[in-house]
Amino acid sequence: MALFQKVVIIGVGLIGGSLGLALCRRRLAETVVGAGRSKENLRAALQCGAIHQAAGDPRRAAAEAEIVVLAAHPRANRELLAEIAPGLAPGTVVTDVGSVKEDIVRFAGGVMREGTVFVGGHPMAGSERQGLAGADPYLFENAFYILTPLPGQPAWAVDKVRAMVRGIGAQAIELTPEEHDLAVAALSHLPHLVAYALVNSLASLPAGERLLPLAAGGFRDTTRIALSSPVMWREIFLVNREKVLALLDVYKRELALLEEAVQKADGDALEARLQRAKELRESIPGRG
Amino acid sequence: MALFQKVVIIGVGLIGGSLGLALCRRRLAETVVGAGRSKENLRAALQCGAIHQAAGDPRRAAAEAEIVVLAAHPRANRELLAEIAPGLAPGTVVTDVGSVKEDIVRFAGGVMREGTVFVGGHPMAGSERQGLAGADPYLFENAFYILTPLPGQPAWAVDKVRAMVRGIGAQAIELTPEEHDLAVAALSHLPHLVAYALVNSLASLPAGERLLPLAAGGFRDTTRIALSSPVMWREIFLVNREKVLALLDVYKRELALLEEAVQKADGDALEARLQRAKELRESIPGRG
Repeated sequence: MALFQKVVIIGVGLIGGSLGLALCRRRLAETVVGAGRSKENLRAALQCGAIHQAAGDPRRAAAEAEIVVLAAHPRANRELLAEIAPGLAPGTVVTDVGSVKEDIVRFAGGVMREGTVFVGGHPMAGSERQGLAGADPYLFENAFYILTPLPGQPAWAVDKVRAMVRGIGAQAIELTPEEHDLAVAALSHLPHLVAYALVNSLASLPAGERLLPLAAGGFRDTTRIALSSPVMWREIFLVNREKVLALLDVYKRELALLEEAVQKADGDALEARLQRAKELRESIPGRG
Repeated sequence: MALFQKVVIIGVGLIGGSLGLALCRRRLAETVVGAGRSKENLRAALQCGAIHQAAGDPRRAAAEAEIVVLAAHPRANRELLAEIAPGLAPGTVVTDVGSVKEDIVRFAGGVMREGTVFVGGHPMAGSERQGLAGADPYLFENAFYILTPLPGQPAWAVDKVRAMVRGIGAQAIELTPEEHDLAVAALSHLPHLVAYALVNSLASLPAGERLLPLAAGGFRDTTRIALSSPVMWREIFLVNREKVLALLDVYKRELALLEEAVQKADGDALEARLQRAKELRESIPGRG
């Protein structure tokens, strides 16, 4: 018997599509329903086996769901949640896959009805590839998947999301929404901001474009995430604005310390800061 | 017949060792001689086929060379050049592989004797692996290799270095020393500084170290170059100090523009700057 009766995924793009593929291939749900604005995309999702059924109306699909996964862009997720919440059956759990958690968790507190539960989620997995075309049933394999349940939420609801996370091969980690947003500001949002700025500073170089072919592996690695979707990142930066700005202040202080050491030609101070960074970087688990 | 009689490589580490391996395997030189401070390292270089002979005294080895390649750290290269220059035979060409060119080229102008020529070089190839253990005969394959000849230098001398570069599979590009130093400040030195600062800003996070396992691919890619040698990068930042600081100013302006857009929650301005970066990044040749 499958783990779930019916899972409804709203937004079948890179993450929603990968989730659907993982659920279908591992037979974790009797029925995986996809909902979304684009009929063409839903048809493609059916064809590639990411969903069993396509639904035109998210609200009606969600009304029959055991779990609803909001996998659209952050702002769309809020609107979708407001739209589906009134029609959910008691016992339904809603989760999302957005990169920022305080905002949606607070919003959910205002719209969810008695007997239904919203548990924020964020799979730490991604790809430069965008949309359903980049979907991969193994995207979540061994990835961390952060959940942000609130104190007092019923255990059965959190357990349901945890079971889904485990089922698709990911490792669930629980943080408060605030801890989560600070962590992603440091580990993901700030690096993106830094990479975008780094690429843009090339444009100011005389003959900058002529020099581009000389960009070796280091530059390419450092700026790879600047290939990410500007539309999505505009939203992420703004939704997590406060923490992004706080982390940016921390970063600018670190940059100023390095600059000061270079300015003063203080080799020892410089080397000490580089050494500290190298050691911290080496302590990050995983290859390279 | 081999292209060269005798090539002397001073400093048989990652770059010098890879060069030696490429020269020996492709039989580009009758004799490849390695010189350096560490006897143990030279013995290892002999054993792995990176050199044919080990020399204890760089000056004596260089006196018999057709080409001398300075492959030690930038500051050591200056000292080595001062040491070997007086003993070079007429017709000898010296080149180096350092990441900064104005400094060494100017220095060479003061120490090279009549009839010998210094042509600055910089292979745009590297590896996080350090030392001879990371050496690879294919490191230069299809890599760009910048040469910084000066106007008025004899064509035969520049041709010799160009032939070596072509022989090891790299593509020679000529820039003035200043153009080179500006390009590497933008494409390599600034990204390193940015990556070191980014890693260090994690240390200021509450529970920063506990969050490290959550660092997904984006963070790892962006900060991979912070694994590079602090001793080497201390030198590079200081030797190319003026241009690094100039590029850092450009970068800080770009970062401030992004910050301002986030601060004001000006989504359109933000998206426009992200879009510009994405397009510029996409125009960089090569995969991903």
